[in-house]
Amino acid sequence: MSEPRRGRTGGRAGRQAARLAAHVEESPYLTRTLKPFEVVSEEGLSIIEHNADVILEEVGVIVRDFPEALVLFADAGADIDGERVRFPSGMCRSIVQATAPAVYTQHARNPAHNVQIGGDATVFAPNYGSPFVHDLDAGRRYATLADFENFVKLAYLSPNLHHSGGTVCEPVDIPVNKRHLDMVYAHLRYSDKPFMGSVTAGARAADSLELARIGFGGDLGDRTVMTSLINASSPLVWDASMLAAAQVYAEGNQASIITPFILAGAMAPVTTAGVAAQTLAEALAGMTFVQLVRPGSPVVFGSFASSMSMQTGAPTFGTPEPSLVLYVVAQLARRLGVPFRSGGSLCASKLPDAQAAYESANTLQATVLGGVNFVLHAAGWLEGGLAIGYEKFILDDDQLGMMATFVRGVDLSDNGQALDAIRENGPGQHFLGTAHTLANFENAFYRSTTADNASYEQWVEDGALDAAQRANTIWKQRLAEYEPPAIDAAVDEELREFVARRKSEMPDEIG
Amino acid sequence: MSEPRRGRTGGRAGRQAARLAAHVEESPYLTRTLKPFEVVSEEGLSIIEHNADVILEEVGVIVRDFPEALVLFADAGADIDGERVRFPSGMCRSIVQATAPAVYTQHARNPAHNVQIGGDATVFAPNYGSPFVHDLDAGRRYATLADFENFVKLAYLSPNLHHSGGTVCEPVDIPVNKRHLDMVYAHLRYSDKPFMGSVTAGARAADSLELARIGFGGDLGDRTVMTSLINASSPLVWDASMLAAAQVYAEGNQASIITPFILAGAMAPVTTAGVAAQTLAEALAGMTFVQLVRPGSPVVFGSFASSMSMQTGAPTFGTPEPSLVLYVVAQLARRLGVPFRSGGSLCASKLPDAQAAYESANTLQATVLGGVNFVLHAAGWLEGGLAIGYEKFILDDDQLGMMATFVRGVDLSDNGQALDAIRENGPGQHFLGTAHTLANFENAFYRSTTADNASYEQWVEDGALDAAQRANTIWKQRLAEYEPPAIDAAVDEELREFVARRKSEMPDEIG
Repeated sequence: MSEPRRGRTGGRAGRQAARLAAHVEESPYLTRTLKPFEVVSEEGLSIIEHNADVILEEVGVIVRDFPEALVLFADAGADIDGERVRFPSGMCRSIVQATAPAVYTQHARNPAHNVQIGGDATVFAPNYGSPFVHDLDAGRRYATLADFENFVKLAYLSPNLHHSGGTVCEPVDIPVNKRHLDMVYAHLRYSDKPFMGSVTAGARAADSLELARIGFGGDLGDRTVMTSLINASSPLVWDASMLAAAQVYAEGNQASIITPFILAGAMAPVTTAGVAAQTLAEALAGMTFVQLVRPGSPVVFGSFASSMSMQTGAPTFGTPEPSLVLYVVAQLARRLGVPFRSGGSLCASKLPDAQAAYESANTLQATVLGGVNFVLHAAGWLEGGLAIGYEKFILDDDQLGMMATFVRGVDLSDNGQALDAIRENGPGQHFLGTAHTLANFENAFYRSTTADNASYEQWVEDGALDAAQRANTIWKQRLAEYEPPAIDAAVDEELREFVARRKSEMPDEIG
Repeated sequence: MSEPRRGRTGGRAGRQAARLAAHVEESPYLTRTLKPFEVVSEEGLSIIEHNADVILEEVGVIVRDFPEALVLFADAGADIDGERVRFPSGMCRSIVQATAPAVYTQHARNPAHNVQIGGDATVFAPNYGSPFVHDLDAGRRYATLADFENFVKLAYLSPNLHHSGGTVCEPVDIPVNKRHLDMVYAHLRYSDKPFMGSVTAGARAADSLELARIGFGGDLGDRTVMTSLINASSPLVWDASMLAAAQVYAEGNQASIITPFILAGAMAPVTTAGVAAQTLAEALAGMTFVQLVRPGSPVVFGSFASSMSMQTGAPTFGTPEPSLVLYVVAQLARRLGVPFRSGGSLCASKLPDAQAAYESANTLQATVLGGVNFVLHAAGWLEGGLAIGYEKFILDDDQLGMMATFVRGVDLSDNGQALDAIRENGPGQHFLGTAHTLANFENAFYRSTTADNASYEQWVEDGALDAAQRANTIWKQRLAEYEPPAIDAAVDEELREFVARRKSEMPDEIG
C-alpha cells in the first residue's frame, strides 16, 4: 500500500488532537438509555436456566488439580466425586444471587476514570491476549513489550476506551513468568485508566495485587482496582491456575470475569440454546467459587462464543450465531443480576479490510444493543484474536465513539423536536443557515476520526487512501504526541523496585 | 491490487455454486421472528406524531406544477393557497389508515419469487440510482447498460436478494428519455424476481406499466407487480414529475414508496426528532395523495436520512444519528400501519474497504433490527450512492445472507436445546464427533461466501488476499456462470418490439 501523503495529514491530525482534548474528560463509560434488544422470551430463558441446572446437577464440572476448591464446594452442599463436582439444582444460583454485587465500581489511578461495571453502564476495554501484532508497514510479527506499551498508550489517549485492559498483546520478548510484572507496570505507568491483573498463576495474581497496592498507595480491601479475566476450560472444566488467580483476587476484593470460552461445535453443541445453557452452567460454577472464597467480592458473568467454519474447523466471527448467543446470555445475566461481559470488535480477518470491519461491526452492534457491561476486545482484534492490529485499533476506536453517541438515544427536548425550526424555515428552503442549525451544528453529529466523506475528486487529491492507510497515519501521530499521565516519583520508584526484585527472584521461563 | 490466484478459486467457486443452487429456492423474503429494537417510548412517538400534524396544518407542503393534485387535496378537505397545501390535523393519517393496505404481495414473473411487503417480512433489493460504477480492475467510471444488466444478473443469482430493484445504476450510455425502456426490459428478461418501474416522468411510468403488462401476460388490475420509488423534494415539497409517476402507478394498482430524502441539517433540522417529524409529515402528504388517486392502492412509507460532515457538508453514513432516525421512523410506520422502507448497506467510502464495511454493517444492523420491510440499496452502494461497486455488491450480499439466519432467532426445540448432547458428552470432551454435532453440522452455521477463516499460513499460501480481492473473483465467476431465466419467445419478442417502437417515437434526450 502506498505511503500516506504527509502534506494534508497535519491539518487533519491537528483537528483530531483538538477534538480529543475537548472530549477526553467527557464520560468515563457509556450509560445506556435504551432497552436492550432481546431474542428469547421469558419462557425460553426459563428453559435454558432449567437446562443449566440439569447440567450442573447431572453432569457437573471437573475441577482440575485444586483440592481447596473441592473442599469449598463440598462445604457449600455440592456432591464431590473425585474431581467431578455436581451441584444440587438451584444451589449455584442462590449462592451467586445472595452475595454477588449487581454493580460495582472499578477504581482507576485517576478517579475521573473510575468505571461502573454492571447496570446500564458499558465499559470498553482493548484487545486481550494476542501473541502477534499487525501493522501496514511491518505486516504480522510477534508482539513485544514495546508493542504492549504502545497499545496501553493508545488506549490511554482514546476518549472512547474506558479501560486499559490486561494482556493487550503478549510481550513474547519477555520471559513468560515475568511478563506480568512489566504488563501491570505499564498499565500503572503509561495510563491512569482502570486495568486487569495477571491470571496465569496464583503467584502472578499476587504480584499484580502488590503492584496495584503500590500504585494506588495503600490497602485495597475497600477498593476494587482490578477486573481480571478467568477463563473456563470448556466444556465444563475449571483448571487450577485460573481458579487460583480468581481466589487471590476474590480474597483481595478484586473482580474476576468468569468466562466460558466456547467455539460452538468443539467446546459445546453447535446450537445457540445449547451453547447458552452450557455457558450459564460453567459461569455459575465459577461465580459460585468466587462467592464461596469471599462472599460479596465482585464477579462478572462472561461469555465468549464463536461459530465455526465447516470447511476448516476454524473459529468464525461476526456471524449470526454468536450474535444470537450474545443476546441470549446477556438476557440470562440480567435475570441472574450480575454484570455481563461479552462481545467486542471480533473478526477472523488477517487484515483491517472489509471482512474485518463487517465482522467487527456485527459483533459490536450485538454487544451494545444486547446491553453488555464489560467489553473486552473492543479495539484492535484481528485473526480470531491471534493478532492485534495498529490500524484495526484506530478504526475500531472510531466505532466505539459512534456507540457512545448512539446509546444516548433520541433527544426529545424542545430543541431536539425542532418544531419551531421547521415552522420558521418553510417548504423548499434549506436549513443550513437557520438559527437552529447554527446553534446545534457543532455537536449535532458524531465526527468520525477515520472516515473519508469528501467528494471523490477531493479524496483522489488527498491520495486515494483507504481507511487502513488513514489509520496508519493516525496511530503514528497519536504515539508521537503521547505524554504519560502524572505519577508520584516515589511511587514509580517503588513499582520499579518491586518489578526488579521479583524478576531477580525467578529464573527465566521461556513460554 | 494483485490479481487473485486462479488455482484455488475454482474449488471454492465450485463449492459456492453448489451452495447457491441448494439455497436459491429457500425463501423469497425474510420473515422476522424477533421484536424490533425500539429507541423511543410510546409517549415520545405521540409527541413526534403531534409535531408532524402541526407541520402539515401550519406549514403545509408545496405541490409544484401539478394542479390535479391540488384539486384532489382540496376535495379531500385540505386548505389550498397557491401551490401550498395545508392539512387539517389528523386528515392525512385518517385517509391513509382508512384505505392503505398494511401488507401487500408484489408478484414476480416467477411466482416462487413473489414477495410480501409489510408485516414481519423484510425484502432486500439492490442499490439504486448511481451514475458511476466501481470495480477493482477498472476503478470508477460512468455506468453503462452493460453494467446495469450485470447487476440485474448478479441480483438474480443471489439467494439473498429478493428483488431485482429498479435503477440499479444509471445506464448513462443510453439517452435519458429512453433508458427506462432498457432497464425495465432487463429486469423482465435477465431476472424473474420482482422489480421497480421508472418514476422520472408520468409517461415513463406508463411505459413501465405497459412492459409489465406484456411481461406478465395480461391485465395487472388485480396484481401489484411493481413497487417504485417516489422521492419528496425535502423540505416539504412534492414535484410534479414524481407525483405524476405515483399517480400512474396508483391508477394501475401498482405500489409506490413515498420517501422523504433528507440530509439532516440541509433538508431538515439536524436533530433526530426533528428529522422524524418532518419525514412523517412529508410521507403522510405523499401517501395521502396516493390514496386519493385510488383508495387501497399499495403504498410504502419511505425514509432516507443521512447525517452530515461538519467539515465539508457532505452526507455521512453508518453514523449513529441516521440509525436513530431509522429506528424512530420504523416505529412511526408501525403505528401508522403501513409497510416501511429504509436502510440498506449505505456508506460514504469510495472503495470496498473497512470504512465501507463498518458503515454498511452499521446501517444494515439498524435496518434489520428496526424491522424495515423494504430495503433498497441492500447491496452495492458506495460513495453516498454515487457509485455501485461490483466487489461491494458481493460483500454486501454475503451480509444479507447472514441476516436471513439471524432473523430466524433461537431454536428452542429439543434439538436446539441440545441437553442430551451435553449430558452424553461430559466435561473435558470435545463435541466435534458427537452424534448431535454430526446431525446438525451441515446447517449449524451460516457459511460466508466472502470471509477467509483459514489459518494465517493457509491464507498467505492462498495469496494473502483481502476481502475485496476475493469478491473480485466471485463476481466474475458468477457472471460467467449466469444463465437467464426462461421466458416465452413471443413475450420476449413483444417486449423488444415495444421498446423499439417507443424509442423510435422519441428524439434522444441527453441527460
